[in-house]
Amino acid sequence: MNMASKPSRLRGDRVTLAHGGGGRAMRDLIEEVFTQVFQPESGEDQARLMHDALQVKGARLAFTTDSYVVTPVEFPGGDIGKLAVCGTVNDLAVGGAEPLWLSASFIIEEGCEIALLRRIVASMAREAEAAGVRIVTGDTKVVEKGSCDTVFITTSGVGVIPAGRDLGAAHIRPGDVAIVNGVLGDHGATILAARGDLALSAPLQSDCQALGHLMAAVAEACPDLRAARDATRGGLASALNEMAEAAGVSVELDEAALPLRPEVKGMCEILGLDPLYLANEGALVLFVPEAEAEAALAAMRSVEAGREAVVVGRAVEKGSVPVRMRSAFGGTRIVDMLVGEQLPRIC
Amino acid sequence: MNMASKPSRLRGDRVTLAHGGGGRAMRDLIEEVFTQVFQPESGEDQARLMHDALQVKGARLAFTTDSYVVTPVEFPGGDIGKLAVCGTVNDLAVGGAEPLWLSASFIIEEGCEIALLRRIVASMAREAEAAGVRIVTGDTKVVEKGSCDTVFITTSGVGVIPAGRDLGAAHIRPGDVAIVNGVLGDHGATILAARGDLALSAPLQSDCQALGHLMAAVAEACPDLRAARDATRGGLASALNEMAEAAGVSVELDEAALPLRPEVKGMCEILGLDPLYLANEGALVLFVPEAEAEAALAAMRSVEAGREAVVVGRAVEKGSVPVRMRSAFGGTRIVDMLVGEQLPRIC
Repeated sequence: MNMASKPSRLRGDRVTLAHGGGGRAMRDLIEEVFTQVFQPESGEDQARLMHDALQVKGARLAFTTDSYVVTPVEFPGGDIGKLAVCGTVNDLAVGGAEPLWLSASFIIEEGCEIALLRRIVASMAREAEAAGVRIVTGDTKVVEKGSCDTVFITTSGVGVIPAGRDLGAAHIRPGDVAIVNGVLGDHGATILAARGDLALSAPLQSDCQALGHLMAAVAEACPDLRAARDATRGGLASALNEMAEAAGVSVELDEAALPLRPEVKGMCEILGLDPLYLANEGALVLFVPEAEAEAALAAMRSVEAGREAVVVGRAVEKGSVPVRMRSAFGGTRIVDMLVGEQLPRIC
Repeated sequence: MNMASKPSRLRGDRVTLAHGGGGRAMRDLIEEVFTQVFQPESGEDQARLMHDALQVKGARLAFTTDSYVVTPVEFPGGDIGKLAVCGTVNDLAVGGAEPLWLSASFIIEEGCEIALLRRIVASMAREAEAAGVRIVTGDTKVVEKGSCDTVFITTSGVGVIPAGRDLGAAHIRPGDVAIVNGVLGDHGATILAARGDLALSAPLQSDCQALGHLMAAVAEACPDLRAARDATRGGLASALNEMAEAAGVSVELDEAALPLRPEVKGMCEILGLDPLYLANEGALVLFVPEAEAEAALAAMRSVEAGREAVVVGRAVEKGSVPVRMRSAFGGTRIVDMLVGEQLPRIC
C-alpha cells in the first residue's frame, strides 16, 4: 500500500478511453487504483473462495447484486463507493446471511478524475473492512464522455446462511412486532439537500452504514426472528407493503413512534414529502414474535447501528389495506406503496 | 410465461424514471419484464442457493463480475444480454469452475424501449439455459435521459471449482502447447462493422458464445490442463501477454496457424488493425502439456464451440519479450500487449 514511493504509470489525472481498452493502460489503472487497495488474493480474473461455513450440511449460499448510480457521487456521510459496499452487505444481512465476499464493477465516464476514483475506492476498502467482507473480484469499463454520469458501480455479494436459519417475509404472523434500528429518511433528505437545487442547508448526513453486525446480534438473540428488510428506495412504506403482501398480513404503524429527526421532518413539511417514502441506506425493519421483542431491542441496541432501535408497529390479521398508520391524534391513514418516483438516482 | 393473457400494468412502451423509484411502477417493470422470464425461486431480494458440489471437501467457489456497455446493444450474432451471460459464464469456465448462478443488474436510460428490454431479457434467458446456468437475482436502476447510453448490464457469476482442479497461468511450463478453440476477431470486426461509421458490410457475426461445456470437456480429457483464458478485450495478444508474464515463460505463436476468416483479415488490412488485438466473445486460449495436446484437441472438437480448435503456438523458456510471432515467411515479430485502445465499448 506504499503507493507514494512508486512512480505512477498513469499519465495524466483523468480517465481516458484507453483505460478501458483491455491493454496496458487498463492494466495500469486497475493495478494502481483498484487492486493495490482491494488486494485480491488471486491473480486470475475470477476469485476462488473457500469457507468452512459452506461445508456445513444445510448451509446455503446467499447471492445478491445492486447497481449504484447516486448523484452526487460524494455527499455528506458517504459516497457512491460506501453506498455500494453497505447496500450489498445489507442485502445479504437482512436475508440472514453472514456477508463474506463482494465483487465491484465500475462503469467510468471518460474524463473522470482519477483522484475521485481513488477516494471512492479507499472508501469502499474502509467500509468493507469494517463490515468484515472482502472485495475479491471486479471489472472496469470506460465509456465516452456523455455516455454515463461520472461513475456507476455495481456490487454483488456472496455470503453464507447458516444451517437452520430461514428469514422471510412469509413467516410474519399477526401479533409480531415491527422494529426499526434508528432514524428514518436521513439518506434521502441528505441527497436532496446535496443536489443543491433547493435552497436547503440542513446539517444532515446520510445514514449509509453496514448492518451485518446488527443482524448477527439480533439473529443470535432471537431464534424466532421472522424477517428483515432494509428500507432503501421507496422507504419504510414500500418495504412494509412488500412484507405485508408476502406474509398475507396487515401492518399497523404508530406514527408517534417513528424515529425522525426534526430537520428531516421540517424538510418534508416544506417540500410536501412523506418521510415514510424517503430512502434509507442504513435502516432496516424487522419482525419478531412479541415474546422476543425485548431481546431483539436489547441486541440491537448493543451495536452501534442499532442504538436507537424502537418498536414502530405490529402485524395484524390481514385487513383491507396492507399498511395503515395510527396518527398521534387517533386517526388512521393508508400507507400505500410509493407511486411514481420521489427522487431519481437516490442510490 | 403466458404473458399475453395478462393485461400489462406497464403504461406506455418506454421506461420512465418512475420505473426506478422503488415503488409500484418499479415492481411492475421488474415483474413483467424480468422475473416472469428469469423466474427466480425466491421472493426475497437475495438468492438462496444450495448445491451438493459445494459440500465436497476441497471444492472452491468461483466468483466473478463484468459490466457490459457494448454499442450497438444489438448486433449480428448477439446483443448486450447474450454478451452479459456468455462473458460471465466464460470467465467462470476458464477458471475451471462449473458455472451455476448469475446475477444481472440493469442500468436503464429513461426512454429506453420496453420492447428492447424484453428482447434482451429473452436473449439472456435463452443463453443461460443453453449454458446450464440460472439467473437468480438482479437489480434495476433508471437514470435520466442522457445519463447513460440505452442500457448497461452487469452480470456476476458464481460456480464451483471441483476439489483438485487448479487452473492458473502460473502453471504454464516451457514446452506446453497453446490451443485456441476457433476463429479469432469475429466479435471485434462485427461490432466495428455494425457501428456503421465505416462503409463496410462484411457478412460477419459475433462469435459470442458460452464456453462452459467446452471447458468441461477439456478439463475431463486433460488432467494436466494448465490454464485457460478467454481472449476478450485486447484480443489474443493481450491474453497471451498476461499469461506469459504470470507464468514466467515466453510464448511463440505461429502466424500461419492462426484461424482467421478472410473477411476479418481483409477488414484488418483495410483499416490497419491487427486481428490479434480484436476482441472475441467466444474464443479462448488454453495451455496443455504437449503429451495432452491431442486429447485436448479431440475433446474440444467434440463440442460445438470447439469444432475448429487448433494449436497456435507454444510456451518456451522466458526470453526477451513475453510473446513473439513467427511469420509465414520465417521472420518473427514482437506481439506486445495492446497499447492505447482499439475500439471503445466493444463489450
